[in-house]
Formats: sequence, structure tokens, C-alpha cells
Amino acid sequence: MKILVVKFGGTSVADPERIGNAAKKIAREIENGFHVVAVVSAMAGVTNQLTDYCKAFGDTTKNRDFDAVLASGEQVTAGLMALALQQMGVKARSCQSWQIPIRSSADYSDARITNVEAEKLLSILQSDTVPVVTGFQGVTPEGDLTTLGRGGSDTSAVALAAVLNAVRCDIYTDVDGVYTCDPRLVKQAQKLKTVSYEEMLEMAALGAKVLHPRSVALGMKFGVPIQVLSSFEAGVGSDVPGTVITTEDSMIEEHIISGITLSRNEAKLTLAQVPDKPGIAAAVCQPIADAGVQVDMIVQSASADGKTTDMTLSVPRGDLKRAVEALRKVKDFEKLEIKTAEDIAKLSLAGIGVRNNPKVPATMFKTLSEIGVNIHAISTSEVRISVLIDEASGEKAAQALHKVFIGE
Amino acid sequence: MKILVVKFGGTSVADPERIGNAAKKIAREIENGFHVVAVVSAMAGVTNQLTDYCKAFGDTTKNRDFDAVLASGEQVTAGLMALALQQMGVKARSCQSWQIPIRSSADYSDARITNVEAEKLLSILQSDTVPVVTGFQGVTPEGDLTTLGRGGSDTSAVALAAVLNAVRCDIYTDVDGVYTCDPRLVKQAQKLKTVSYEEMLEMAALGAKVLHPRSVALGMKFGVPIQVLSSFEAGVGSDVPGTVITTEDSMIEEHIISGITLSRNEAKLTLAQVPDKPGIAAAVCQPIADAGVQVDMIVQSASADGKTTDMTLSVPRGDLKRAVEALRKVKDFEKLEIKTAEDIAKLSLAGIGVRNNPKVPATMFKTLSEIGVNIHAISTSEVRISVLIDEASGEKAAQALHKVFIGE
Repeated sequence: MKILVVKFGGTSVADPERIGNAAKKIAREIENGFHVVAVVSAMAGVTNQLTDYCKAFGDTTKNRDFDAVLASGEQVTAGLMALALQQMGVKARSCQSWQIPIRSSADYSDARITNVEAEKLLSILQSDTVPVVTGFQGVTPEGDLTTLGRGGSDTSAVALAAVLNAVRCDIYTDVDGVYTCDPRLVKQAQKLKTVSYEEMLEMAALGAKVLHPRSVALGMKFGVPIQVLSSFEAGVGSDVPGTVITTEDSMIEEHIISGITLSRNEAKLTLAQVPDKPGIAAAVCQPIADAGVQVDMIVQSASADGKTTDMTLSVPRGDLKRAVEALRKVKDFEKLEIKTAEDIAKLSLAGIGVRNNPKVPATMFKTLSEIGVNIHAISTSEVRISVLIDEASGEKAAQALHKVFIGE
Repeated sequence: MKILVVKFGGTSVADPERIGNAAKKIAREIENGFHVVAVVSAMAGVTNQLTDYCKAFGDTTKNRDFDAVLASGEQVTAGLMALALQQMGVKARSCQSWQIPIRSSADYSDARITNVEAEKLLSILQSDTVPVVTGFQGVTPEGDLTTLGRGGSDTSAVALAAVLNAVRCDIYTDVDGVYTCDPRLVKQAQKLKTVSYEEMLEMAALGAKVLHPRSVALGMKFGVPIQVLSSFEAGVGSDVPGTVITTEDSMIEEHIISGITLSRNEAKLTLAQVPDKPGIAAAVCQPIADAGVQVDMIVQSASADGKTTDMTLSVPRGDLKRAVEALRKVKDFEKLEIKTAEDIAKLSLAGIGVRNNPKVPATMFKTLSEIGVNIHAISTSEVRISVLIDEASGEKAAQALHKVFIGE
């Protein structure tokens, strides 16, 4: 049995007409010889509407009944999609998480999938019926509904593909693939045919909002090829490729750099004349982490006098105030001079070339220097280099890097 | 444990504010010493919205996935009600039919409750927690969601009250009780304090839309007192009584006639010169029944010549055309003269006095005669007399009967 998992996001199932269009894509993949499992999100706007209802009753975070309310959204889409397929003569039935079951932890609103039973789904597929599965949700061993948090529906789809040993997991969304850069920023941005899990993880973490890192990480763990493609264009994943996220080995082409991302959602805080002693970085970062703020980059200047150092940290812009407050509460830092800046951005290169080609960082820094862009901080990973720069320079810097690393 | 089941209909939970008000009533009944089980409908308008979505995909009657879509409505309300109670400091949790479970037949859109497990609900109640149960739905032994059709949520509530041996089942709705007559028709209409199951069944069947006969029949079977009261007035069922539907024996007062109903939803068809032979009534009624039309009253005139007779039938007005077409398809009736009339109404008296007091029918007919109302047909049951009259006379006839049997 050649199994294909297809997932449709909220905008792809926003109304009955779009659900009908999505159903046609499923029918087409069946004609292509696949046994199809469909995974659906709630209709666009529904989850927000339900969340608003819940907010009328105070703080509903990590609440069992909040999750029970939210889970209804995918239930509706799954039923409608099954009806749409039936109308086209395709056998289909909606499957809610508890009916399969898709087991999860009891971390309400942020549950983790712990197990997916394949047996029922396989038996449905064997009867040439499309199981239309509610994404974004699970059921605890005690029989309580949960939701999976951000990126949940994509994660559901990839998990099903993994358990069912599917050929591929196609994520239908409102963009037609993963681009080398945001086309609004660099008009020469190119759609990638393939990208490795590692690169995609870095790009997702850097703000390319196509796929949540969680679903990419799951795909990597189980070796599930994930394709991102548009539900608003003609054709289906087997005919008209979007971008396939897969292992490096199976990539047909190899970009040195797959993507350039610019994140404007950054802020910087600089601590002047911090005592330069072992453990100081931890002493600074711990209270910020305790306040729930993720520190991204840390730069510690060389100490001139051997006694104090300047330290620069970057945090998400919305968390800047909280980070400063957290530091102020630490006795040692009460009188510390803290400078903050919100007019900065993070510019990143992602690609396996970062690891394989030592010239990449040097070329990057040289390119930025040539156009007069000052680098405030640098961080790197296996397949990524990020620099903190002035937000005002972001666009021209991204364009310059795109020209050098990817092409015009 | 003194258990009270309270059920809130769609208009009573139409938005978060009303859900909050309903939650206050639950909290008040807990203060009154009850362990409360709440049963909720979908928020007003939601079921229609979901039905409209489904209709985009053709005929969805008796469809498993149509039911899965519809069942989401009560799931949302149950979760919101649990959140509302929690905000007030009352322990609560939503319970969907499959979580209890409430078992039903697999007759989608019109399923029958086959079994309710009490164990889980009792354990929730014992921990001083309010189970907020989704009305209107069940789950089949195979684990598929069903909906219970018209009157479903009331039926769910009464079934739970029966299984849990509840003190009473309070149905909060948009009217404050059961009246002797529609107050728009007879301004002297009085609210009944009590009414027997049998009377309520007749009144419900006659068009008093307060309670579906199905829930009344279930209450009668298990001896569950059912109270109808308004959710839009201050106070709760234990303090401010609405109308209690109960056994005749436990009724405090005894009306001869509890209610007068006028149904305008009637039509009449008269077959002239039907052969007067045994089995003719069946021969006429069978094709109409086969067309899904319920024949209400049948009057057969005395045969003058011993060979033919005139026969008059009443059917719901919307089914008249279908009934005539069904008759026309019968070979023996192809050339039969069929007269139809839609300007008629059914006027009914319901009350245990019909059985106990032989003067009731005579008084009814005399009253109508005195005001010049002609009777086209008569039918009776244990606790009801109905007559078919011209619709134009309906209002004055109802008022006259109310004056005579109930008072001014």
C-alpha cells in the first residue's frame, strides 16, 4: 500500500468551497495510485473565535476544558471534508484523535504526541476509504482531549506519516514552497526544490513561518519526506512539486546556502562593566530564562582591564521589558547599567554550505562590510550563521547576501 | 447524594454572558445542597450554521460524518460552561458523550439512547465536581458519534436524571413554564404548576413546543419529575417553580383540563364516493404512510347507498401535496375525486378530566356549536379531544373553550 498523508491548513479549508477544492486534490492523488490519509486544521478564524469565547472566563491556559472547546474546530473540518469526498464518490470517514487513538501527554494546550495507533487507520485504508483525521489534537490515556499547541496540525500529519510509513507528507498551505528569502524582501528569491531537515529547522527557527520546527524535527527523526505546497494552485503534490524537506543525502541539488532570513522581531540589551569572572554569563542568563525569556545571542567583549566586561544579549522584542525587569531583581545587578535597543534585526544564512565551506562566514562578513553594515553580534550553528545588525540596514543586507550566495 | 440534573437550551447559552448566568444558577443549586449535573445544547444558531456547511456537500441525512460535525456544537458549550463554573470557584469538567459514555444506536441524526454509564458521572459528583455533559448526542458501540434528533438535549438530560436517580430534571428554556393555552391566543392563559406526563405528552404532540414528547415519555417511563422554567428570570428551579411534569398521583392540584392548543399546521383531504368495503381505510392510509406522511384524523361518513362513502383525512399542511400524489399513484384511486383544504386548524383539549369526566366532550361540542363553529372531524385519546375546524374560527374557539374549561 502506497500511503500519502496530505494536510490542509486553516486557510485551505476556510469555507465549504475550499474544502471542496481540497477534496478534489485528495481524489486526484487516489487516481495517482495512493492510499490517502487527510489531516485537517480548523477552518480559518474558528480557533480564534473559540479562544475568544474561552477568554470570557478568565485565564484558560493549560486548562483541560479549554482544549476540549478548541478541539471542536478540527472535528468540524474533518466531518465536512469526509462529506465533501463522499459527494465526489470517494469513500471517506472523519476520525477524531480519540477514535484512532492519537495518544498525547496531558500538557493541555501544549501536549506532545506519545503514540499513534496505526491499526484502525490501516484497516480504513485497506477498505479504500480516506480517513480524515483531526489535526492539532490528541487524547490522554485517561480519555481527555488535548491540543498540541503551535504547529500542532503539521505535527499530527508528520506523526501519522511516520507511523503509517507513508511515502511522503504533503503540507498544503497558502504559500507554494520554501524560498531562499522572503520575496517581499528580495525580489530575486527562488523557490527551493529540496531543503534538508537541518536547514529547514534553522530557517523555521529563524522566522520562515512555513513549517513549525517541531514538525520538521519529527520528520527528521523518522525520515518522513515533507513537501510544502500551495492549496490555491492547480495540481497536486505528486504532479506539481513544491519544496520537499528531506535528508541531505536524498537532495537532488545542493545549494551552498538554502535560505536567507531577516527577523525584525529582535531587541538587544547591553550590560556595561559586568564583573569578568567565571560563571558570569550563567548569572546573567539564568534570571532571564527564569522569566521565560529565551536569550538568543550572547556576546562578551574582551575585558580591557581584566576585571569587567561588556555583555550584549539579544531577546525577542516583545520580551525585552521582562528581561530587564528580571535582571533588575537580581541583587548583584541592581545598579548595573543596562542599555537597550529595539531597532535591530537578525540576518541569517542557512544551508549545509555553512558546515562544508569555510569561506561562507568570511564571505558573509566581507559582503556586509562592503555595504557598510555593522555587525553587533554573531552566532552560528552547524548549518546557520546569524548576525545582529541595525534594522534599517536589514533589507539592503539581505539583498546583498542573496546576490552573493544565491544569485540574481 | 441529592442529585439534580439541569439542562440549558440553545438560547440559554447563546453567548458567554448567558453561559455565565447559567453557571450562576448551577452554583446556586449547589448552595441549595444539590450535586448538580449540567446538560447543555449548542449555542443558539450554531447547529444551523453547521448544518448549512454540511448542506454544501449534498444530502447529509443519516450520515455518520454529518453527526460528527453537529456534535461539535455541544462540545463547545460544555467546555465553556466548565470554564465559567471554574472561574466562579466551582469545580467542573466537560464530559462528552463518548467520555461517559452515553451509548446510542447507530441511527445517525435520529439515534436512540441505549445505555448511560453512571459510574464515571457518580465518581465526578462524589468529588464535588459538576459534570457538564454534551446533550443531543451519543456514541455507538463502535465508537462513532451520533446525534439524537429533535428534542435530543432534553432527552439526554432526562436519561441522565433517570440513570443517576436524580431528584428532578430542570429544563431551563426561554419560557417560564407550561401554559393552559398559548398566551398570544388567549390572554387569560395560566401557567400550570404541575401537569401529568400523559397530559404533557398530548400537549406536546399537539404543538405546545415546550418539551419534545420523547423526553416526556422517557420521564414517564422512569418516573423522573421534569421541571420547565425560564433561564432568563432570577432564581433557580428549587426556589422559583416553573411547571413540574410528574405522575398524576403526585400532582398537588388537579385541573380537569390542563391545556388548550390550536395547531394551524393542518390540511384536510376528502375522498368522495370511495367504495364502502372492509379494508378501505387501510387501502387509503397505507400509500400515504408509505410516502412518509402521518395521517392524523380520519372520518368516514355513513354510507347512504351502502356502496360508497366519503372519507376525510387530516395531514400536516406541508405534506398535503405529497399525500395527494401518493394516492394518485394507486391504481384504484386514479380517478377518485379528491378535495383538499388548507384553511383548517386543529383545536384540542388535554387533561385527565377527559378520561374522568364524561361531560367534557359534550361541553366542548356544545360550546363550539353556540359560537357557530362547525366541526369537520373529531379524534380522542385517553387525555385529549381534538377537533378539526375552519382556521378562521380558531382563535375565538380557543378563547371560548378556555373560558369554559379553565376560567377567565
